[in-house]
Amino acid sequence: MQYPKPITKLIESFSKLPGIGHKTAERLAFHAISDMKEDDALAFARALIDAKRELFKCQVCGFITDTDPCSICGDQGRDNALIAVVETSKDVLSLEKMRSFQGRYHVLGGVLSPLDGVGPEDIGIAPLIERLKDEGIGEVILALGATLEGDATSQYLAKLLKGSGIKITRIARGLEMGRSIDYADEVTLIRALEGRVELT
Amino acid sequence: MQYPKPITKLIESFSKLPGIGHKTAERLAFHAISDMKEDDALAFARALIDAKRELFKCQVCGFITDTDPCSICGDQGRDNALIAVVETSKDVLSLEKMRSFQGRYHVLGGVLSPLDGVGPEDIGIAPLIERLKDEGIGEVILALGATLEGDATSQYLAKLLKGSGIKITRIARGLEMGRSIDYADEVTLIRALEGRVELT
Repeated sequence: MQYPKPITKLIESFSKLPGIGHKTAERLAFHAISDMKEDDALAFARALIDAKRELFKCQVCGFITDTDPCSICGDQGRDNALIAVVETSKDVLSLEKMRSFQGRYHVLGGVLSPLDGVGPEDIGIAPLIERLKDEGIGEVILALGATLEGDATSQYLAKLLKGSGIKITRIARGLEMGRSIDYADEVTLIRALEGRVELT
Repeated sequence: MQYPKPITKLIESFSKLPGIGHKTAERLAFHAISDMKEDDALAFARALIDAKRELFKCQVCGFITDTDPCSICGDQGRDNALIAVVETSKDVLSLEKMRSFQGRYHVLGGVLSPLDGVGPEDIGIAPLIERLKDEGIGEVILALGATLEGDATSQYLAKLLKGSGIKITRIARGLEMGRSIDYADEVTLIRALEGRVELT
């Protein structure tokens, strides 16, 4: 049997999303066809189109935005001397949810990964260096993932910025909240020990 | 910080999908915004709109279709005396993938579920009875899920069709292929024992 083409196409679109296998794509497509209100489906289609058309990268920090500069770079209440370097725009949202970071961001759009052919010129390192020259930054917090690639990128940036007079820090590594010692992996424990702080 | 509206709206649309939590919706939305090609995003939006506009339920069997009758009901090579009763259009696809069932289908669009307020008049039972009067059906295979509601619906239909002269069968229950006895649940084992067949 040939499935009706509109079903096949919708399954195909869903299965191109990351982490969505063919079975889940089928389930989502049938949901959209059988159970979703027509209004919701049209709103979904419209949201996709609008997101692609109206959003772009902030020219200052690289964060996804619909204003130029983005609402964070344009926020006069922020500490302009402090920049957190992150991998993706999504990381900015994660950090913003804490509501405790008052600086601004720089979105690299990736991390160094020689195996995948991602070198320094492929991620937003040059624009970061330009910003650091111009904006009177006092501290750069490297807030990249605790992965091999994240660490390599942090080390690369730390080396590159050495001697610039700007303080370079990296977010702490250690036990996640709620984690017991016997469930933590070995590397995490090594990092937690290395990063131990004195209790006063 | 206020997120740009197009991001919020896209996250909202994704999170309305079944089985997609807020975190996953965020991840999918950022993928669509940052990594998806513009063409793919437009094709996705178009697929959603087309699926809602071009698909409807086959007037004969209730399967999702873009032709009337659907390609299965219109297939002259099928056994018109045999009908499999299923819960959803997706179930039709699952059975069609086996390529071994040569009859046609009847999609109920649900199963009886008194707790959720779903009674016989809420699912496609009346149209099924009409078909059975008109189409010279010899056997109805109840191919509903092995759930309380599926079983109740099968029993309801078996009772309703008793005395109609039509053979009513239900697909077998037992161990799934590859399942060892000690991993099977109790109810499955009971059903497997009840449904034992003689080896000749």
